[in-house]
Amino acid sequence: MATAMMTEARRFIPERLQEFCTAVFMKAGARPEDAAQMARALVFADLRGVDTHGLIRLPMYVRTLKSGGMDVRATVSVIRDQGPTALLDGHNGISYVSAGRAMELAIAKAREFGVGAVGLRNAGHIGALAFFSTYALEHRMIGFAGSNTTPLLAPTGGTVPLLGHNPWSVAVPTGGDTPVVLDMANSTVARGKIRLAAVKGEKIPLGWAFNKRGEPTTDPEEAMDGGFLTPMGGYKGYGITLLISILCGLLTGARLDSEIPDLEAADRPKEMGQFFMALKIEAFVPFEEFSRRINEVIHALRNSPKAAGVERIYVPGEIEHRCAEERRRNGIPEHPNIVKAANEVARELGVPPLE
Amino acid sequence: MATAMMTEARRFIPERLQEFCTAVFMKAGARPEDAAQMARALVFADLRGVDTHGLIRLPMYVRTLKSGGMDVRATVSVIRDQGPTALLDGHNGISYVSAGRAMELAIAKAREFGVGAVGLRNAGHIGALAFFSTYALEHRMIGFAGSNTTPLLAPTGGTVPLLGHNPWSVAVPTGGDTPVVLDMANSTVARGKIRLAAVKGEKIPLGWAFNKRGEPTTDPEEAMDGGFLTPMGGYKGYGITLLISILCGLLTGARLDSEIPDLEAADRPKEMGQFFMALKIEAFVPFEEFSRRINEVIHALRNSPKAAGVERIYVPGEIEHRCAEERRRNGIPEHPNIVKAANEVARELGVPPLE
Repeated sequence: MATAMMTEARRFIPERLQEFCTAVFMKAGARPEDAAQMARALVFADLRGVDTHGLIRLPMYVRTLKSGGMDVRATVSVIRDQGPTALLDGHNGISYVSAGRAMELAIAKAREFGVGAVGLRNAGHIGALAFFSTYALEHRMIGFAGSNTTPLLAPTGGTVPLLGHNPWSVAVPTGGDTPVVLDMANSTVARGKIRLAAVKGEKIPLGWAFNKRGEPTTDPEEAMDGGFLTPMGGYKGYGITLLISILCGLLTGARLDSEIPDLEAADRPKEMGQFFMALKIEAFVPFEEFSRRINEVIHALRNSPKAAGVERIYVPGEIEHRCAEERRRNGIPEHPNIVKAANEVARELGVPPLE
Repeated sequence: MATAMMTEARRFIPERLQEFCTAVFMKAGARPEDAAQMARALVFADLRGVDTHGLIRLPMYVRTLKSGGMDVRATVSVIRDQGPTALLDGHNGISYVSAGRAMELAIAKAREFGVGAVGLRNAGHIGALAFFSTYALEHRMIGFAGSNTTPLLAPTGGTVPLLGHNPWSVAVPTGGDTPVVLDMANSTVARGKIRLAAVKGEKIPLGWAFNKRGEPTTDPEEAMDGGFLTPMGGYKGYGITLLISILCGLLTGARLDSEIPDLEAADRPKEMGQFFMALKIEAFVPFEEFSRRINEVIHALRNSPKAAGVERIYVPGEIEHRCAEERRRNGIPEHPNIVKAANEVARELGVPPLE
C-alpha cells in the first residue's frame, strides 16, 4: 500500500470513513446523530460499489448543509398518522434523516399491522435507495423505498423531459443466501455513462439516449446537448417512472418532478417526495417456509445453464452484496481525487484529513 | 354491416357478449354469478382492445372448466386475515372469481385501514390484470394486481427460462381525465408478436428474443425453437419479474413460476399465486388536491412538444380507455374466426350462437 501510485485507489476501513464523514457533517452544522446517519448512507454506497453515491458526494452535501439547501435544524413532523399509513413532513431537513425516520415508521407499522406505508414530503436527495429498503431485512420484512427526482425522462413520443428517472428499491430477506435487493432508476442507463462516453470520444449504443428532437442517437455529445435519456424498456419504463412520480410526488403532496431543482443547486431546498413501504412476511406465510423456498429459487437461477462467456448468474443486489463483503474485509478503495476533494472540505472545516 | 365481407370483423354490443359468454360458462358448469364474472373479464379486455384476452379465450376457458383445470364447485377460503393483510386460498376454482374476491378484500381493508394487501394461492390465469387493479378506481384508491406465470424469461446470463413474465398492473384514479392504468408483463414484447413475425416470414428486431443458446436473434423461428423472450430493460426487467414472482408465488405459498403448467394444459390446475393491494388516497392527501395535480401532470405530458411523426402523447392506459369508449358506442369488433370458434363451443353446449 505504501508504494501505491498517486493515481491508484487507496483503501480505508469503513469505520474510518464513517468517523471522518460524521466529523465533517457535524462541522457543517449537522447534529451528531444526523451527521452519523448521513455518513452511514455514504459508507453504505461505497461499501456496495455504488461509488457514485459515496464519499464523492461529500463536498456537495457540505455545500447543501452550509447554504441552507438542507436545514440542519429541521425536525420531521407528522401530518397524518392512522393505523398502517402515515404522511410525514421533512421540512427540507437532512434528507437521509427524514427518509430514515419514514422507513423506520413503515417498519414499526408493519410490525403492528403486517404492512406499513409512509409518505414523506419536503424531502431531499437520498442517493442509493437500497440504503432504506434494506432497513426491512433484519425485521423479516420486504422493504420498498422510492423517490421522485428532477426531470430527466420525456414521455414516450415527447421531446421534453418532464419526469424524473425516479429511483426505487425493493429488498427481500432470504434468511440465508444474499438478500434480493433491486435498486434502480427508470432510465436505460445513468447519465454518467453518457458523460463518460463523451469524455472518451466513444459512441453510445442505440437505445440509451435521444437528441433534442427526440430522435435516437449514438452520439453522446448530441445526447448531452439538449437531449435526454431513454426510459428502460421504452413505454413500459415511461409508465413505471410516472407511477413512482405519482406515489412519491403526488400522494405525498410534494413537488412534481418538473418542479424539482437539480441536485447541484446546493442552496435550493428540493421539496422532493418519497414513499416507503414494509410488508411483514409472517403476515402471509411462515418465514421458515418463505426462506427455504426463496433460497431454492436463488439456487436454481444461479445453477441454471449459462450463455457463452457468462461466468456467473446473479440475483439482484448480489454483486453489491459480495462487493460489500470484500470491502469490509479489505477496506473501501477511494480514488485519490475523491480523497483530495473530501480532504479540502475537511481542512476548511478543521477536521483532520483522511490519510 | 349487412354487406360486410366474411373476413371483416363484426361488431357486437358489450351486453350481448356478456350475455353470451355468461350462458356458455354456465353450461360449462360455472355458477351463474361466477360465469358472469368470467364474462365481465373477457368483455373488459375486448372493450379495451386487449383482444388477446377477450372472446378469443372462451374455448380455452370452457375446456378448462369442463376438464377440471378449474374446479367450478370450489369456493375461496381464508387462510389468514389480520388487520390490513390477508391470505386467501382459491382452491383452483374459477380464477377470475378468486382474484375478484382478493381484490375486493384488499379494497375493503384499504377503506378501513388506508391500505390493504391480500395474497392468493391456488389461483389461475386471469388475463388482463387491469381488470382487477381498476376495481380500486371508483373507491378513490390506487390498485395493484400481480400474478406469477408459467416460465418464459431466463435470468440475465442464463439460457433456461425459469421465471414467468409475471404481469402486473397499477391503476390510479384521476377524478377527471382518463385514469392512469399501467398493465404490463416484464418481457420486452409478448410471445404473440414473435409468432406473428414467424407466420409472416418477417425478421424480429434485435432485443426481442434469444435463441436457445442465449444469443440475441432476429430470426423468429430460431426464437421459437427453444429460444426465449428478453426481459424488458435487460437486467432491470429480470429483477422486476423476480420481485413479482416473490410477491405472488413465494409470499402466498403458491407454486414457483417454474412449476406452473402452460396455460394451454387446460385440465391441469395451475396453483399460481397472485397479490393485490389497494391504497386509499385520502389516507395521505385530500382527493381533490390529488385529482387537481394529477390532471395537471397529464395535461403537461400530453401538451409537451412531440417528436417528428408523433400525433399524440398518451398516459398509460389511455389508448385502452379511448378504445373502450369507442367500442361502447359502436360495438366490439370480433374477427369471424373468433366468433366461429366461440359459436362451435356454444353449439356443443346448447347455447344460442352469436349472430
